[in-house]
Amino acid sequence: MVFNPTMLTRRTVLTGSAGAMATLGAGGALPASASAPLATRQGPGVYRTKLGGFQVTALDDGVWLLPIDDTFVRNASAAEVDRALRGAFLPPRILPVTFTALLVNTGAKLVLIDTGTAGQVADTAGVMLDNLAAAGVTPAAIDTILISHFHPDHIDGIKTKDGDKVFPNAEIWVPEPEWAYWMNDANMSGAPKPVVKYFLNARRIFADIAKDVRRFKPGMDVMPGITSIPAYGHTPGHTAFALHSGNQSMLVMSDTVRNPYLFARHPDWQPIFDMDGPLSVKSRRRMLDRAAADRMLVASYHFPFPACGHMVRRGTGYELMPVEWRPL
Amino acid sequence: MVFNPTMLTRRTVLTGSAGAMATLGAGGALPASASAPLATRQGPGVYRTKLGGFQVTALDDGVWLLPIDDTFVRNASAAEVDRALRGAFLPPRILPVTFTALLVNTGAKLVLIDTGTAGQVADTAGVMLDNLAAAGVTPAAIDTILISHFHPDHIDGIKTKDGDKVFPNAEIWVPEPEWAYWMNDANMSGAPKPVVKYFLNARRIFADIAKDVRRFKPGMDVMPGITSIPAYGHTPGHTAFALHSGNQSMLVMSDTVRNPYLFARHPDWQPIFDMDGPLSVKSRRRMLDRAAADRMLVASYHFPFPACGHMVRRGTGYELMPVEWRPL
Repeated sequence: MVFNPTMLTRRTVLTGSAGAMATLGAGGALPASASAPLATRQGPGVYRTKLGGFQVTALDDGVWLLPIDDTFVRNASAAEVDRALRGAFLPPRILPVTFTALLVNTGAKLVLIDTGTAGQVADTAGVMLDNLAAAGVTPAAIDTILISHFHPDHIDGIKTKDGDKVFPNAEIWVPEPEWAYWMNDANMSGAPKPVVKYFLNARRIFADIAKDVRRFKPGMDVMPGITSIPAYGHTPGHTAFALHSGNQSMLVMSDTVRNPYLFARHPDWQPIFDMDGPLSVKSRRRMLDRAAADRMLVASYHFPFPACGHMVRRGTGYELMPVEWRPL
Repeated sequence: MVFNPTMLTRRTVLTGSAGAMATLGAGGALPASASAPLATRQGPGVYRTKLGGFQVTALDDGVWLLPIDDTFVRNASAAEVDRALRGAFLPPRILPVTFTALLVNTGAKLVLIDTGTAGQVADTAGVMLDNLAAAGVTPAAIDTILISHFHPDHIDGIKTKDGDKVFPNAEIWVPEPEWAYWMNDANMSGAPKPVVKYFLNARRIFADIAKDVRRFKPGMDVMPGITSIPAYGHTPGHTAFALHSGNQSMLVMSDTVRNPYLFARHPDWQPIFDMDGPLSVKSRRRMLDRAAADRMLVASYHFPFPACGHMVRRGTGYELMPVEWRPL
């Protein structure tokens, strides 16, 4: 391969070849700029896939580039974490936290699983509604919202900053143990200070619409073809889902795994985001083992967009094989 | 994890939990259909990334699902090929051939590297112009077209089926040895029958615009920041490119590798698409070694969209680590 950086500074003069040849721009001034300006935004983040009679649409909400320090993983050193990031061609000490909401059209219902950050978590996230529009769906068309847990990046999309409902016609379903934990004042008053804001945020979102919020017991079918799965540890009522239609299934892992290069490769690592570290590890291993053993299609809220793929067992952990982009 | 298929057929009755709970749709008829119909098309395939002062946009043209038989790889059995496909969660005996054109905005020029199939290769491909439009760029805005080689899926986008130029203002640059080979009548008359159509197609595209087609010698800089790289074997003049801007680089591998799960994992495999199998292996190994050793960002025409990522050495082959979708 004839290829080295010095070629950049060398304008090759062509000689001896048949046919008319010229160097581009030779003999004339280059225009001052290209015919189109540089774009200021990423392309629309809308990925669709068929699941039996369902249609599943992954909707990008953006990425939070979170600075992390050596306390981020309770049982791994900063050097180990940075090595895992480098293995994924990511810079050290920064965790890319991607957000991808999942729209499920069951044919009977339009169901949104988790709601994005509504721009209230990071400046570089909050584009889910733009991508919903790019997918041709209005917020008013959403019939049902399923919530995995009450962290802000999953529930903030329910309301605008001014407190208005974003999805006026949607029935909101939340895990019962999640509601019981976060809406309990005694739990809030006993919580460490950094966690109190999550209690307050849950009240901001849910307090004035409490009577309209439906609660389900994790493990139950929330509707035909959508089963809820208890996956406790990340939060007390953290819930995953499984979609089934025809002979196809998808495991919606919610926050059981999060960044694949850290926590699928190293399922035993316990990040500070997991309220109960050991219980989270148990839920994570069970979920990943099932996904890999059954070769299930998975969706995972914090995987890189489109946040869908398969998990492959490798050594003591797992790796993500992303889905391929396909015509429908 | 409480999760088994029998849950699908069981409508859980909720008891004993605090708060109002209900099963969705209980007591009322489900609507006949969701508020939005199933979409009929994949989301726009437009992925942008910054490369120094350049902006690179990957444009999806679709996927050809090509049935393959046991002659597809000259030196691997059908069972070996199917095992590699299964490892990527792909069905046996079908090769997904993705097409992704690359738009490079250098700030001075809008450069399109290869032009897609124009719907003339498979019914499930030919959406590149739609995605160019989704990216906010008109065909008339393209200043330069760079061609890697003369296979139809790379050059067909230059013209409509009726023979009109699709990019009226673009200067077209092609590798000199590619032109010399395919436009030579003696080569055509000596070619095996299945290859003759490629000669004829090259004439359909280029014959009446020959005087306007610029030819470059692979190895030369085709413009500031874009170097061409000879990568012969797939075709006699098959060419890759390297983009350089600021301190960032991208290796545009063209058809040196193609499907990553087959030919990056098994660089020595010789598919029938490679006209000179052993020379192709040499070019492929050199390209992959360089990409992995220098941790270069790569683009590869037949990788899954967005067809950009990094190559990681693994055992006797390489694996693809796709880029992450990021806000700009």
